[in-house]
Amino acid sequence: MRTVDIISKKRNGGANTEAEIKFLTDGFVSGAVADYQMSAWLMAVCLKGMNHEETQILTRAMIDSGEVLDLSTIKCKKADKHSTGGVGDTTTLILAPLVAACGGCVAKLSGRGLGATGGTIDKLESIKGLSTECDGQFFEKTVGELGLCVASQSASLVPADKLMYALRDVTATVDSIPLIASSIMSKKIAAGADVIVLDVKFGNGAFMKTVEEAEALAWEMVNIGHRMGRETMAILTNMNEPLGMAIGNGLEVREAIDALSLRVGNDTPLMQVSTFIAKQMLMLSGVAGDGAEADALVGEALHSGRALEKLRSMCAALGGDTSCFDNLDELVNVKKHIPVYCGEGYIKQVDALSIGNAACILGAGRQKKTDKIDHAVGLMLHKRVGDHVKNNEPVATLYVNDETKAEEAANLVKTAFVLSNEEIEVKSPIYKIVRKV
Amino acid sequence: MRTVDIISKKRNGGANTEAEIKFLTDGFVSGAVADYQMSAWLMAVCLKGMNHEETQILTRAMIDSGEVLDLSTIKCKKADKHSTGGVGDTTTLILAPLVAACGGCVAKLSGRGLGATGGTIDKLESIKGLSTECDGQFFEKTVGELGLCVASQSASLVPADKLMYALRDVTATVDSIPLIASSIMSKKIAAGADVIVLDVKFGNGAFMKTVEEAEALAWEMVNIGHRMGRETMAILTNMNEPLGMAIGNGLEVREAIDALSLRVGNDTPLMQVSTFIAKQMLMLSGVAGDGAEADALVGEALHSGRALEKLRSMCAALGGDTSCFDNLDELVNVKKHIPVYCGEGYIKQVDALSIGNAACILGAGRQKKTDKIDHAVGLMLHKRVGDHVKNNEPVATLYVNDETKAEEAANLVKTAFVLSNEEIEVKSPIYKIVRKV
Repeated sequence: MRTVDIISKKRNGGANTEAEIKFLTDGFVSGAVADYQMSAWLMAVCLKGMNHEETQILTRAMIDSGEVLDLSTIKCKKADKHSTGGVGDTTTLILAPLVAACGGCVAKLSGRGLGATGGTIDKLESIKGLSTECDGQFFEKTVGELGLCVASQSASLVPADKLMYALRDVTATVDSIPLIASSIMSKKIAAGADVIVLDVKFGNGAFMKTVEEAEALAWEMVNIGHRMGRETMAILTNMNEPLGMAIGNGLEVREAIDALSLRVGNDTPLMQVSTFIAKQMLMLSGVAGDGAEADALVGEALHSGRALEKLRSMCAALGGDTSCFDNLDELVNVKKHIPVYCGEGYIKQVDALSIGNAACILGAGRQKKTDKIDHAVGLMLHKRVGDHVKNNEPVATLYVNDETKAEEAANLVKTAFVLSNEEIEVKSPIYKIVRKV
Repeated sequence: MRTVDIISKKRNGGANTEAEIKFLTDGFVSGAVADYQMSAWLMAVCLKGMNHEETQILTRAMIDSGEVLDLSTIKCKKADKHSTGGVGDTTTLILAPLVAACGGCVAKLSGRGLGATGGTIDKLESIKGLSTECDGQFFEKTVGELGLCVASQSASLVPADKLMYALRDVTATVDSIPLIASSIMSKKIAAGADVIVLDVKFGNGAFMKTVEEAEALAWEMVNIGHRMGRETMAILTNMNEPLGMAIGNGLEVREAIDALSLRVGNDTPLMQVSTFIAKQMLMLSGVAGDGAEADALVGEALHSGRALEKLRSMCAALGGDTSCFDNLDELVNVKKHIPVYCGEGYIKQVDALSIGNAACILGAGRQKKTDKIDHAVGLMLHKRVGDHVKNNEPVATLYVNDETKAEEAANLVKTAFVLSNEEIEVKSPIYKIVRKV
């Protein structure tokens, strides 16, 4: 078998066989297939596509390139969720403890943020002393004892994906549905998930700009999950405005704690999406028999405070100083608060990408992977689409440590808000559910 | 400017600017653009194409990546020809001395053969002591004194093409008309050609399998030539059967000497193509005013023996022992001659690729670039398309040194011949002329 023939077949629009895809993936990890050959193949895949079978084979080959977490001592079904990346999306910190408090089991590996998009690991690290670097044994033990653990991706899992993603990033081959789908699903499956709920964002603040692209990606991932015997479903959610009101790491942890403490309404988009996914995870795991049972379980876990306690227990298990749960200001202690105004009217749009970039400029995110971040900075929105704002009302407050960045960030926030004289209809953040029936 | 954005633009079907293509080419040679980025861009070019302007810019950028031969002390127009590679195609060794003997000027850099395709440098090296490795000064001096020189590609010319071709070879990105055209034309122009005649082969024994592909490549090259101020034309020639009767290095030199000695008919396909291209070169160089004048010049150069003398002088200038001109057997001295029979009938087809591969198996060609070749071996065809053959008549004779390879080669030759009971119409090897009017 020659690498050049495998590339040539894909270039000509053919389907690569299992043996060919394994040869390419294993060879890439071992060094027998050169990176310049892999990148040519990746570009051919971007432009010629892959069928469902090829995509499943690639997913399998990537899983087989490294270790697979063995969580078999935990008898319940391990549920995981994945979001394709958004702005102000702190659902994981709300729904994971919620599911665990209901008797479900959440074993989740997360990543860091890049650019306008936040990452759960960065958010958790806002808590003093907390470290998400842990070995498989600790992870398994924590999931077994608490019913949840959120930890950092381990380097030994799916090494082919890590290498391939680094290559795709610099060769304009990121944007391909089969490649994105196999990358996400290989990580979920290698981390031991039996149940997978995918939150595929669309809109200006998301990787997928249109609902059509998001739906195609959702179907590709659901297909892989089913072919590989995992209970899998996806929801499409709108990322044309930030999901929550907080954007920034400590700010989002505070928002999650507020949410689990019932200090924000149950009808906010963040809570709607979080509880919806939590219920799906409970039903697919077999913890709840139907929607009504899931509703009851989730309501009880929230109102009893047990969901909040689960989050606190997990943070403590990861070495975090949980005094911040009682003194939330610790998380968001900055030099200056700067209000942002944008005039008077009904809010028609809040551009999520601009808001994410504004937080990033303030130091909440990274331009490059090696950048350091400031966990306390970011911004709080006070208004969202559909709200009315007066001239003297701020639409947002910047949480600032480096004042030299404030003006640029404030201007970005200002331009993110589009006003209208007419009342604006508010739509549900959940646009569509994608599942096999 | 970021490499990834340049790749992304091409991936999305856009046209790269001059600055972008220069950035990519220069960066690739300097190492600032990684080979895995270049290969991704090359695959995007293969699948999305390049317009005429981009192709010209790439040609220019490749020329500018290295030295350019300065032949300005030679006052006449320097003519060059290029063949896209065929089997039994020894036209260069016939037409270059012919043009020089008519008062034209041929400055030609040639390459080595690979696979079924021969290379002029390998053929010339059949002559004892001859070396085509020479510096620019020697090349210029020889062209100035003799009106011709055929030498090896110098490493300092068009280094971007060399690097890029090596990458294309292992990433399934060879097969792209703009990439092939710019590769060929950059080398011709960097070597100082004012006049360029291109022989684009099509058919089973050629790189371009169909006449449509060959014509598209011819137009692309003619376009580049005109945009860059070179007198350029192309002919499309049929490579469904070998052009000459000799296939093998020494055998082809012998055939060229025979042709220039008028020991083969003027109407053979090899002589038809050689004299046709020679006349075009003379007219485009301004040596002959029209076809009739070119005809007269070529006839005189052949019949006077001056064309043969030009070839001998050039070989001597390159250090070759020209005693072989008087004793042709020196060139083809092998252990054994093995006749090949294929039955009785009219010859309908002689598959050029199989014939080329048979010669390669006998040791006349290389499977890999580092293989050594045997200059004396190969095969002579005795029959070609349209001829009638009897049962006891050989269609070819193998020139063999390694008898263990003879059977495999003989079988390939046998299968290359397709017979018919009906008489077969013989067509001109020159299918079409491609030039701007």
